[in-house]
Amino acid sequence: MIIYLVGIDPKKTTIYIQSMIPETAELTVFYSNLVTIARLERNPTVKTEIAQKRDLFGESVTYGFLGYPVSQAADITTFEGELVPVGEDQLPLIEQCREIVRKFNSIYGEVLVEPEAVLSSGKRIKGLDGNEKMGKSLGNAIYLSDSEEEITKKVMSAVTDPNRIKKDDLGNPDICMVAYYHNLFSTKEEIKAVCEECKLGKRGCVACKKQLAQNIIETLKPIREKRAYYEAHPEEVDKILIEGTKKARQVAKETMKKVKKAMMLDYFE
Amino acid sequence: MIIYLVGIDPKKTTIYIQSMIPETAELTVFYSNLVTIARLERNPTVKTEIAQKRDLFGESVTYGFLGYPVSQAADITTFEGELVPVGEDQLPLIEQCREIVRKFNSIYGEVLVEPEAVLSSGKRIKGLDGNEKMGKSLGNAIYLSDSEEEITKKVMSAVTDPNRIKKDDLGNPDICMVAYYHNLFSTKEEIKAVCEECKLGKRGCVACKKQLAQNIIETLKPIREKRAYYEAHPEEVDKILIEGTKKARQVAKETMKKVKKAMMLDYFE
Repeated sequence: MIIYLVGIDPKKTTIYIQSMIPETAELTVFYSNLVTIARLERNPTVKTEIAQKRDLFGESVTYGFLGYPVSQAADITTFEGELVPVGEDQLPLIEQCREIVRKFNSIYGEVLVEPEAVLSSGKRIKGLDGNEKMGKSLGNAIYLSDSEEEITKKVMSAVTDPNRIKKDDLGNPDICMVAYYHNLFSTKEEIKAVCEECKLGKRGCVACKKQLAQNIIETLKPIREKRAYYEAHPEEVDKILIEGTKKARQVAKETMKKVKKAMMLDYFE
Repeated sequence: MIIYLVGIDPKKTTIYIQSMIPETAELTVFYSNLVTIARLERNPTVKTEIAQKRDLFGESVTYGFLGYPVSQAADITTFEGELVPVGEDQLPLIEQCREIVRKFNSIYGEVLVEPEAVLSSGKRIKGLDGNEKMGKSLGNAIYLSDSEEEITKKVMSAVTDPNRIKKDDLGNPDICMVAYYHNLFSTKEEIKAVCEECKLGKRGCVACKKQLAQNIIETLKPIREKRAYYEAHPEEVDKILIEGTKKARQVAKETMKKVKKAMMLDYFE
């Protein structure tokens, strides 16, 4: 069995509620004056998202939506973030944040920390239908919250070698999504056996899928159990959020103190 | 002597420091999502100001500048402002605020107060050179902070009837800025005497100006003295601002409580 680590450990990472950190709103307002409308409209991530949401926005995007990178720069710098884990499509937002930081520091002195993007070394997993991207609307994704029945049902629908009609046909694992997923969820020995038997027409797709489903179920079990635990104990989730927000607020206040001092807005101090 | 009332009485009006009210920044961020870029770009006040500042902004206005009406809506509604004293050129900003309030209330319930503009009944005073508008760059304005010498010097430069070259020439007070200012700063008897003697060529412009300067000096004296008093007692100004900000903050917190409850952002309460 392969062990996957997912989730955020509140002992290592502070999880907080953004709307309970007014300092982030204050920084958003300050940064608003350090970036032009034209620059935001040129931001590739913003451009893509506006294009995707054309139906929603109609005549024009909201002021807040165009300013999403400004708000995100505030999110990062409120906590003096140095490394920001992002997907590739988010890189322009980190670049925008770095520009705002440099602009601020050039006017008010070296106060803000310029963050760097960190891309994941992990690869994106293809959908069960072979699509490069998983998606709710595509129905080709297994969720960490899926029940054993749901996982089995989804795996049974996975796309296999289209040229293999009967069990006796010789299969090609290279173009089979079940084999692709076996590579992610099965042991080396299993993968070897599955592929060899498939190529010789000795193992049928149904048996192969059932084995995969069982492996996925086993792999996701500890994750699913932990999720179920927190679902049954919302008071513990609340506690994590309350403590995380409290801790975050302290850091945010320290940052704001430095920022207001630099901007000479530290009246009566 | 005419008595003019100017200034803000801290006993009647709360004076606060905006950057010390984070709730206003929070509301600005919330309201950002209730107004489109297109709507802000159509705002006549914003359009005029952007045109006036074209040299400053160059390629494009800043995000914060375009959002100035959003920030102003937050300023007003943070304190549930019902009546907002403005100049005519500011009316579109109040209208924008009313739109944001209606939008917010239509989504989250009747929480925010829709303000109304109050225009001053007082008229704008023309410049000493006859220009409709006073301005620092035009050098045609008397300031409340001007010394007696400065007032006298400025009045001596005021534009009079251009057809009156010598004292004996018959003057026309209707086209004389000194007569215009006499109407604002002198008694009825003085105004009558000044105008009659001018028309008959019996009073010279220099004497007429000296009399006006003296009246302006007398009228502004109590204002100038009060200003000098506060300039000499910055600790009293600080006290007014500290107390005003404290009071304002309390009101702002109450408003934010209502707003966050309506938006269902009142976590753990």
